[in-house]
Amino acid sequence: MHFKTVAIIGRHQDSGLDAPLRHLVDTLQAAGCNVLIEADTARHTRITEYTIASYEEIGQRADLAVVMGGDGTMLGAGRQLARTRVPLIGINHGRLGFITDIPLHSAQDALTSVINGNFEAEERVLLEGRVVRGDVVMFSGVALNDVVINRAGRGGMIELRVELDGTFMYSQRADGLIVATPTGSTAYSLSANGPILHPRLNAILLVPVAPQTLSNRPIVIPDSGTLSMTITALGRVESGASVHFDMQTWSDCQPGDRIDVRRAKDTVRFLHPTGYSFFSTLRRKLHWNLMPQPSDNVE
Amino acid sequence: MHFKTVAIIGRHQDSGLDAPLRHLVDTLQAAGCNVLIEADTARHTRITEYTIASYEEIGQRADLAVVMGGDGTMLGAGRQLARTRVPLIGINHGRLGFITDIPLHSAQDALTSVINGNFEAEERVLLEGRVVRGDVVMFSGVALNDVVINRAGRGGMIELRVELDGTFMYSQRADGLIVATPTGSTAYSLSANGPILHPRLNAILLVPVAPQTLSNRPIVIPDSGTLSMTITALGRVESGASVHFDMQTWSDCQPGDRIDVRRAKDTVRFLHPTGYSFFSTLRRKLHWNLMPQPSDNVE
Amino acid sequence: MHFKTVAIIGRHQDSGLDAPLRHLVDTLQAAGCNVLIEADTARHTRITEYTIASYEEIGQRADLAVVMGGDGTMLGAGRQLARTRVPLIGINHGRLGFITDIPLHSAQDALTSVINGNFEAEERVLLEGRVVRGDVVMFSGVALNDVVINRAGRGGMIELRVELDGTFMYSQRADGLIVATPTGSTAYSLSANGPILHPRLNAILLVPVAPQTLSNRPIVIPDSGTLSMTITALGRVESGASVHFDMQTWSDCQPGDRIDVRRAKDTVRFLHPTGYSFFSTLRRKLHWNLMPQPSDNVE
Amino acid sequence: MHFKTVAIIGRHQDSGLDAPLRHLVDTLQAAGCNVLIEADTARHTRITEYTIASYEEIGQRADLAVVMGGDGTMLGAGRQLARTRVPLIGINHGRLGFITDIPLHSAQDALTSVINGNFEAEERVLLEGRVVRGDVVMFSGVALNDVVINRAGRGGMIELRVELDGTFMYSQRADGLIVATPTGSTAYSLSANGPILHPRLNAILLVPVAPQTLSNRPIVIPDSGTLSMTITALGRVESGASVHFDMQTWSDCQPGDRIDVRRAKDTVRFLHPTGYSFFSTLRRKLHWNLMPQPSDNVE
Repeated sequence: MHFKTVAIIGRHQDSGLDAPLRHLVDTLQAAGCNVLIEADTARHTRITEYTIASYEEIGQRADLAVVMGGDGTMLGAGRQLARTRVPLIGINHGRLGFITDIPLHSAQDALTSVINGNFEAEERVLLEGRVVRGDVVMFSGVALNDVVINRAGRGGMIELRVELDGTFMYSQRADGLIVATPTGSTAYSLSANGPILHPRLNAILLVPVAPQTLSNRPIVIPDSGTLSMTITALGRVESGASVHFDMQTWSDCQPGDRIDVRRAKDTVRFLHPTGYSFFSTLRRKLHWNLMPQPSDNVE
Repeated sequence: MHFKTVAIIGRHQDSGLDAPLRHLVDTLQAAGCNVLIEADTARHTRITEYTIASYEEIGQRADLAVVMGGDGTMLGAGRQLARTRVPLIGINHGRLGFITDIPLHSAQDALTSVINGNFEAEERVLLEGRVVRGDVVMFSGVALNDVVINRAGRGGMIELRVELDGTFMYSQRADGLIVATPTGSTAYSLSANGPILHPRLNAILLVPVAPQTLSNRPIVIPDSGTLSMTITALGRVESGASVHFDMQTWSDCQPGDRIDVRRAKDTVRFLHPTGYSFFSTLRRKLHWNLMPQPSDNVE
Repeated sequence: MHFKTVAIIGRHQDSGLDAPLRHLVDTLQAAGCNVLIEADTARHTRITEYTIASYEEIGQRADLAVVMGGDGTMLGAGRQLARTRVPLIGINHGRLGFITDIPLHSAQDALTSVINGNFEAEERVLLEGRVVRGDVVMFSGVALNDVVINRAGRGGMIELRVELDGTFMYSQRADGLIVATPTGSTAYSLSANGPILHPRLNAILLVPVAPQTLSNRPIVIPDSGTLSMTITALGRVESGASVHFDMQTWSDCQPGDRIDVRRAKDTVRFLHPTGYSFFSTLRRKLHWNLMPQPSDNVE
Repeated sequence: MHFKTVAIIGRHQDSGLDAPLRHLVDTLQAAGCNVLIEADTARHTRITEYTIASYEEIGQRADLAVVMGGDGTMLGAGRQLARTRVPLIGINHGRLGFITDIPLHSAQDALTSVINGNFEAEERVLLEGRVVRGDVVMFSGVALNDVVINRAGRGGMIELRVELDGTFMYSQRADGLIVATPTGSTAYSLSANGPILHPRLNAILLVPVAPQTLSNRPIVIPDSGTLSMTITALGRVESGASVHFDMQTWSDCQPGDRIDVRRAKDTVRFLHPTGYSFFSTLRRKLHWNLMPQPSDNVE
């Protein structure tokens, strides 16, 4: 057996999560695994009859973490466990996700299969970043999807000066700028017209949101570099600017602040049942299997 | 009864069209209508026991034309009948279309309803255009969707100088240029990133295909003007350029040729059962009723 | 002489505006015009030796308003004078604008020419809108460029249900939605990938900002309709949503609020020296006269 | 001295190339280099008093090739010399290019500097591809920019089934599909809304041209994979399809043909004077140094 101790992490907000979670525990115990329930998950679902563990304990004791919820739950668990090398597997409770790619109805088969060694592992890159004012680090964070810098609130725009390893790239006026991992390329970045990056690409993606320079385009760079973005102007100074590491927000940015972003040392390890296809998920999520529509009237 | 004599026009290529067409005739005759079958439709479907009529006769005798097929069939019939003021109604045989917006299964109810006067009429604009070389008109045509000018074939690009009512608009290097009606805004133009124009808008839409100037954008102008597009260069002269009026193609364009396009005097009249909604068709065709996907992992 | 009394309006923030403004007064007085200085302009530039007038007095007494500044100054003056029918002419102090289209160095010639009757008049449409909560109008405003609804601040998204004359158009999750006039089509809307609308088009433009539904596209509708946008959800309720009428902002929107927008009864009248070309401004502002770049290496 | 024997390659079509080419020879000889003139270059410019060499001889004898012309000349020379490992340096005769990045007026200084060892080397990836019908390879080629598959000519569309290492990616109806290297990401791909890839990225870019599925997006994949694109349908069979390797075209594609594309074993080596910046070229070529325009009227 590949995974002796398995932790279970669930989306807190969901009502009705307790039944499928209990079913999950049964499956794992039937397969001979020790099961840990993540502490917040246990409290919210009131599943308290099993061993409860903090993220720190999970990091020390678990061989695998099974996440049930949506992609956001998976993002959060991934950031928590990045340092520990505990691999994650995602089961979707609700709509199919990009990274919670096992549908609930096939969770039992998929898990049994994975526990028996039929899986593919995939390393996903994280970004680490910090907001620097003068010599002081004001805020720092880690992101599995993206770091987003944008004007906070009331209109206007943000002007950024972007450098790569100390070399000037470009200045940009826009609503904001998205710095995304390949994982994040199918999240917010996609709405802002960014390209899709294959998960195994060693790359970082920069996508402007509503850029004022019309010839601005998304740029893909190697993930070995360090990006520095300095806020050089705000359309309305009083409204400030924000930085988001996935959904963790720091909204006290000022002109002059510099945001440094680079690939984190740690990665997150996702497991998929053998036969997993990134493109199959893409086709389903983006409806590419539906036949083309707009040109129907040009038969 | 609003429509005493009704013509039936079907998509020739479809096998299996005869049964629904016969059903259509029954419905119309039961409602007391005289039925005409368009000549090509009759020949291909071998429905020969009814009165057969050419487009010219349909134009003279019919009060309504019912088109069964796809949007392309409707486009063709629309161009044929534009001068005659015979209104058209479109029944989709296959996937729902933008302008053949009555699904086959509700054709009987919809038609009965329309014949009893429960309909909304909508005028759709046509473009008329011609290719001029020196003083000679080389080709002319009419389009319900769009006039497309593009390089014919082997790579390279086409350079066009565009004027509106004799005033210089811009020069453009691209794969091609689409000049679309509101009807055509949901056809090829949409693939080239054009906006959607409401059918009642008095407007013409210009959309470049793969423009080399990155700040080029689709432009919407009033449909009262005359556009002139002169081919000023070709990436590969030997490969030539083409002009398409809907799907009628003239592919012998040369540098120096001028293509004039303006709104045609005649319009096409589409009928819809009362309660028709352009946006409902849009939502269905473009899957807007499906919930958003890309940001699922940003919960 | 076409314009006996001429008001002068300047951008307050600019230092160094007093010399060109005085020059402007000289030109107008030499041409025999009575000159009024708008009150705020007079206070900021300390040009106090001429007749000072409020916007209300300008509306009653002036035959023409000359605006010196940028497009924002022109927008503000346009909204103020829309009801009065006083026409405006825009002189650019700084970079050439879309609607302040007379460069400073040719201001004297252009003004003399206009005063002698060599001008073209152009009506520009305004939008009027209001935010409705239950039965209460919480805020109302007028916009010459656009009405923008967006999430206020900290990430997340806004979900809107859009109706046209009471008919459901679509629901949308996005950063925001821009409702623009043809004038506004070259402002913020253009950054969000909207098309360019010719100023004489009777149309309203809807452009989503970073829409989560990837098949969402800008839509152009006739300006005879009334749009209603209801906020049905917010990614982060605590952060709220904002509505902007040009740059006037109301940032206390809540889920359930409805924003109604329609064409205002009044229009703004812009004058241009004879020979003005909208497309010439476009070409200059968007660098269309610069030769195409990206394909250089495909010679 | 780093480069003892230097070959010179010029754009044949340019008149007026002989004077700068002779100047180039002088510079190189003054620096102590042996100079070879590429045979076609010599014939067209009638510079025949130096040693003339075929590409094969250049490959054997030269330590460096200096290309004078545009990016197209550089692409051609790069493909010719890829196997030989002779590095190239590009001097622009005309507009500045993306890969001919030394302006003519600073050619002497730049070359002297490079010859003295002050240079940076950069490997550029090539694609190799072939068209397979049944078991027969119908055509094969090498591309430094891109492999483009498109419908040949008269309208309609092409339908492709795309696989990566034997795994189905997606089917697509479009005008065409661009498979680009990072070098090619700033060429045709950019016109079709593709992202910019940093030259050092180990990636291949797929960009659809006018895709009928509106949620289709550019995709970036690792350059370790093999792409297979099968033509599954053509809008108009009689018009055929084409494949282009840079500007070498094969236009006899049929439904059923498969186009395989992968990274070539050989790379091209470009040299730049020390201090070269890819982003500086980008900013100049795409006018990013010009200030934002569209939002001017939202001050």
